[in-house]
Amino acid sequence: MYSFTNDYSEGAHENILDALVKSNLKQSAGYGLDEYSGKAKDILKNVLKNDRIDIHFIPGGTQANLISISSFLRQHEAVIAANTGHIAVHETGAIEATGHKVITVDSNDGKLTVEKIEKVLKIHNDEHMVKPRLVFISQATEIGTIYKKEELSKLYSYCREKDLLLYIDGARMGSAITSKENNLQLSDLVDLSDAFYIGATKNGALFGEALVICNDSLKKDFRYSIKQKGALLAKGRLLGIQFIELFKDDLYFDLAKHANEMASLIQDALVKNNYKLLIKSPTNQIFPIIKNTDLEKLNKKYSFTTWEEYDENHTVIRICTSWATDKEKVQELIEDLRNL
Amino acid sequence: MYSFTNDYSEGAHENILDALVKSNLKQSAGYGLDEYSGKAKDILKNVLKNDRIDIHFIPGGTQANLISISSFLRQHEAVIAANTGHIAVHETGAIEATGHKVITVDSNDGKLTVEKIEKVLKIHNDEHMVKPRLVFISQATEIGTIYKKEELSKLYSYCREKDLLLYIDGARMGSAITSKENNLQLSDLVDLSDAFYIGATKNGALFGEALVICNDSLKKDFRYSIKQKGALLAKGRLLGIQFIELFKDDLYFDLAKHANEMASLIQDALVKNNYKLLIKSPTNQIFPIIKNTDLEKLNKKYSFTTWEEYDENHTVIRICTSWATDKEKVQELIEDLRNL
Amino acid sequence: MYSFTNDYSEGAHENILDALVKSNLKQSAGYGLDEYSGKAKDILKNVLKNDRIDIHFIPGGTQANLISISSFLRQHEAVIAANTGHIAVHETGAIEATGHKVITVDSNDGKLTVEKIEKVLKIHNDEHMVKPRLVFISQATEIGTIYKKEELSKLYSYCREKDLLLYIDGARMGSAITSKENNLQLSDLVDLSDAFYIGATKNGALFGEALVICNDSLKKDFRYSIKQKGALLAKGRLLGIQFIELFKDDLYFDLAKHANEMASLIQDALVKNNYKLLIKSPTNQIFPIIKNTDLEKLNKKYSFTTWEEYDENHTVIRICTSWATDKEKVQELIEDLRNL
Amino acid sequence: MYSFTNDYSEGAHENILDALVKSNLKQSAGYGLDEYSGKAKDILKNVLKNDRIDIHFIPGGTQANLISISSFLRQHEAVIAANTGHIAVHETGAIEATGHKVITVDSNDGKLTVEKIEKVLKIHNDEHMVKPRLVFISQATEIGTIYKKEELSKLYSYCREKDLLLYIDGARMGSAITSKENNLQLSDLVDLSDAFYIGATKNGALFGEALVICNDSLKKDFRYSIKQKGALLAKGRLLGIQFIELFKDDLYFDLAKHANEMASLIQDALVKNNYKLLIKSPTNQIFPIIKNTDLEKLNKKYSFTTWEEYDENHTVIRICTSWATDKEKVQELIEDLRNL
Repeated sequence: MYSFTNDYSEGAHENILDALVKSNLKQSAGYGLDEYSGKAKDILKNVLKNDRIDIHFIPGGTQANLISISSFLRQHEAVIAANTGHIAVHETGAIEATGHKVITVDSNDGKLTVEKIEKVLKIHNDEHMVKPRLVFISQATEIGTIYKKEELSKLYSYCREKDLLLYIDGARMGSAITSKENNLQLSDLVDLSDAFYIGATKNGALFGEALVICNDSLKKDFRYSIKQKGALLAKGRLLGIQFIELFKDDLYFDLAKHANEMASLIQDALVKNNYKLLIKSPTNQIFPIIKNTDLEKLNKKYSFTTWEEYDENHTVIRICTSWATDKEKVQELIEDLRNL
Repeated sequence: MYSFTNDYSEGAHENILDALVKSNLKQSAGYGLDEYSGKAKDILKNVLKNDRIDIHFIPGGTQANLISISSFLRQHEAVIAANTGHIAVHETGAIEATGHKVITVDSNDGKLTVEKIEKVLKIHNDEHMVKPRLVFISQATEIGTIYKKEELSKLYSYCREKDLLLYIDGARMGSAITSKENNLQLSDLVDLSDAFYIGATKNGALFGEALVICNDSLKKDFRYSIKQKGALLAKGRLLGIQFIELFKDDLYFDLAKHANEMASLIQDALVKNNYKLLIKSPTNQIFPIIKNTDLEKLNKKYSFTTWEEYDENHTVIRICTSWATDKEKVQELIEDLRNL
Repeated sequence: MYSFTNDYSEGAHENILDALVKSNLKQSAGYGLDEYSGKAKDILKNVLKNDRIDIHFIPGGTQANLISISSFLRQHEAVIAANTGHIAVHETGAIEATGHKVITVDSNDGKLTVEKIEKVLKIHNDEHMVKPRLVFISQATEIGTIYKKEELSKLYSYCREKDLLLYIDGARMGSAITSKENNLQLSDLVDLSDAFYIGATKNGALFGEALVICNDSLKKDFRYSIKQKGALLAKGRLLGIQFIELFKDDLYFDLAKHANEMASLIQDALVKNNYKLLIKSPTNQIFPIIKNTDLEKLNKKYSFTTWEEYDENHTVIRICTSWATDKEKVQELIEDLRNL
Repeated sequence: MYSFTNDYSEGAHENILDALVKSNLKQSAGYGLDEYSGKAKDILKNVLKNDRIDIHFIPGGTQANLISISSFLRQHEAVIAANTGHIAVHETGAIEATGHKVITVDSNDGKLTVEKIEKVLKIHNDEHMVKPRLVFISQATEIGTIYKKEELSKLYSYCREKDLLLYIDGARMGSAITSKENNLQLSDLVDLSDAFYIGATKNGALFGEALVICNDSLKKDFRYSIKQKGALLAKGRLLGIQFIELFKDDLYFDLAKHANEMASLIQDALVKNNYKLLIKSPTNQIFPIIKNTDLEKLNKKYSFTTWEEYDENHTVIRICTSWATDKEKVQELIEDLRNL
């Protein structure tokens, strides 16, 4: 049984494990004030071509989202997200648990647009309703699509005009940035958002996300929020060490590229063999529509995520690749898809 | 410079790193539903001599506390803790952030007693005040003391009589259980509390705590709370793998014993050399009162935690040892203390 | 200028003011423990034909909703509501501010059905999502419609089967119960919901809602929640006195009937004069679609609530009547509508 | 039986009831946007000699406290209060329920001082602890004492130096301002605090507090918070009407003066008859220490609040007078005290 269920089925890239072993008995300060974390921040500031940003390493993505949003907003302020947005669907109401409404907007491609946000603002016009204040997007989105540079620019420019914050969930940022369709650089995000995170849990690390705060007004006292929500890791060095390795010699990008290529091979084969797709994805998650009888056969050798019922006889599944996906298994799957 | 600042200055015991390396590329299910976590739970149930308990692995201690307490309590219910209690002092209001008041009780030895709790209950007698519902204690306490079996039994028996929940923060459970003064077994806690956690971050692991829920009425839907608070690790296997290693051949206890012995050596030397102690500690944290001029000298070679000002010329410091503390450094420190 | 903007433009029925004046200097206990509140509860238990229910008087509707829901739910549990539901739209995220997600379901008539709820349950199937636990409906709904007895029975029976709580916002309960289309008695609600409130702010009182808790498991410690949310009125007698008067000689029902009749007169005239309606309403709120040029003329003499843009040239307005609506003004409005 | 239990045993001053009756059927806008509320704000701005302040009428004191504090603070920020502070003791954890810790400081006279606050700041020095940000005081305090002008000035000047907000709970502001020992004017508070409220529930109104926000940075979007917490009264006019009456011809001050005089008569008699006092109070609450056997006798004719056990044979009681306290009853009580 080979799993295409998600992109966190394996451990970490070997460089990371090596670095953990090597540094293991060296003493360091706790709670992210160690030299590794310091060095990793410097490396990232260099990658992002900006040294005025604040960087915080957070163990997980749900934490990064809930800490940021609850730190950035006043109690009556709300988030706007696509109906597919991770915070709106798969974080067990983590944002609401900190007191904030998540206003969802229907979206076929997982993306928000100025028009969609505008509609929300028009309705929310007095103190009997929450005040929309933060726009949450994911890059790549939860259904594999990405924002192009012009789309993001337009969105952020609108946000600034309307005094909205733009926050980017980058759980799969590596996959987005190394997508063939992408025309953004990681460093562009500093100018095109108020805060974003660079996800590593799903791209080579044991765990860890690098939260980048670009907007000065959001920086103050952020470590208090990390601690309060239980995300200030005692051995914060673990995060620093991992990010040092990931951003050495472009490893982070190489790993993501591999994931994208594996997904692309499968998606191309699907199209070639006349499978329908929920949406065409340029990243490491693809969403074919499979006959239930075929799915039953495939499930004997592979596991996938059931995305949603398509109709009585078909199911949308998610095939997810990662930095660790075995190319031979991909080829085997392609073969099996062809032979169904 | 050698650090006695805390018990999380190093990485993890080598067995853990070996196991992480060995299992690294094996695929497993996410979010703690993997076989490692399953096996680790079985091992712990065996150690705790009970298979009706629920076990959840949580990355950190503040998380374990805030998730448990917010899951166990209704909105008007409050916690009783010693004024030294970790949740009352060093978790940035994590419990209050979930909506619950922490009622503190002054305590010289870091411990709660029936008498102290009784006083709180007497005052909180109607709906204009919060309703005390959960008693929070730490084993070992934040100032190194421990509850003996008879003390804990008395406390729990009182709690049950008064419909109070008893929760034990076990960040330093290893040190407590292996203390020379201890007469409790780990498995006793199942019968003497409603929930407790066995801390590993401070005893050999990279990170991780094993939360044990003993009271049936607190078990339902607990994973929802873990996820909502951002503590359901994607690669939950990391926690399972670590606990398997820690509870193989009593490693967990051996590591804690080492920490205690190192602390004991230093404390004995301090007493022998006529240093005063804030309190006599049978665990891995000791609290000598040092002349400020002496401290200045020591700080050239060692780092400690400043606990509190004792008087104009003296400071209470915390010397903290761990599984990784180097015995040679301990002997060097003892030598230096003698020569001051 | 005459206002049809809402049903809280005037003070209170004169009987209430008389009773306030008469009782004014009599001393009574605070916080709802006075004899008036006691008597009012007895009267309501009689009206509701049940003396095992718990009744709490709450100053306002948003308070009644947020106190109940936050008291009834555990932190990971969520509410299901129609997209028009008051808590989902017009309470500034009051429910989310207590930590709970409100899952909304599109509804053309403001009502929930078993089918709609079923769909929500199907999707919310694991701990990565909130757990739907409470169904929120309004009687009458926010767009004037009502649940018939068979609809409510079906809904409640489904809720019990699925371990869902059913909560009814009765801000306009008077209007619903006295609607010509209604076939429910107020006392039926005790058997067809877990909790509901009987609104008086919008039906003759200065302010005040009577919350009725039918489900035994929701009763414990409820006054703690009222106090914590700031809704335990010091002079709780004010609520008791008002409910005594409202439920003397069916005043509550007579007042609501008047409001319904006034609305019905206007709605009938609208239909007769070929105005379109957003929805046909059997209660005190009606929703005609008016040409913008006509609306401009009407707005010189009357004020209404703008509900939503219908198209470029038309607007949906809300005309709201109340116990205090002047019949002469209604006739004048009808005349004016005819002459447009 | 005559009650000296509290200052909210009766209804409202007759002028208020008259005004309610007179205005009853006039239509007005909802939610505090009516002309009465507008006029009342103008009157108060005049009394406070400042028209840049923001004024919001809130139904109750717990609401005023919880809405203000939760609106003013970021999630990791905490309140400093005396251990006797109303929010710390008698509001069922209302502040914690909005996520904020209340740090309490022991105080014999119910007052905070610069020294006491300084100690708190010294301890709270990093992100592992909450960040003290708002100082909560009550004028008069919960045990009847008052801040003199020089005390308040010193406190506020310190707060500004340390970037702390100063908030004054004025539930008994009338009694404080009309106290013989007072040297503050109501208008001084605008310059000596960031926000405060003028309580009317306990001084002549049916209910209602006037919250005054002096600090510009705290004004934005405040009505959102009022609404979210359920305190935006539909018939907001009720608050406006009451405050118009209370601040017509100094009624508010006259009522408070009466309460103080009644308390003063009793306190003087107590002292004269050699009763001990918990503290000497210059306002409408006094705290004599009474022999339990005497208290038993008094309780046949009068009711008081039991404050605390003094010793085995004595009890501290609270005797509370109000605008409505009957002078004859006071004289009767004095007579009875003398004859015990």
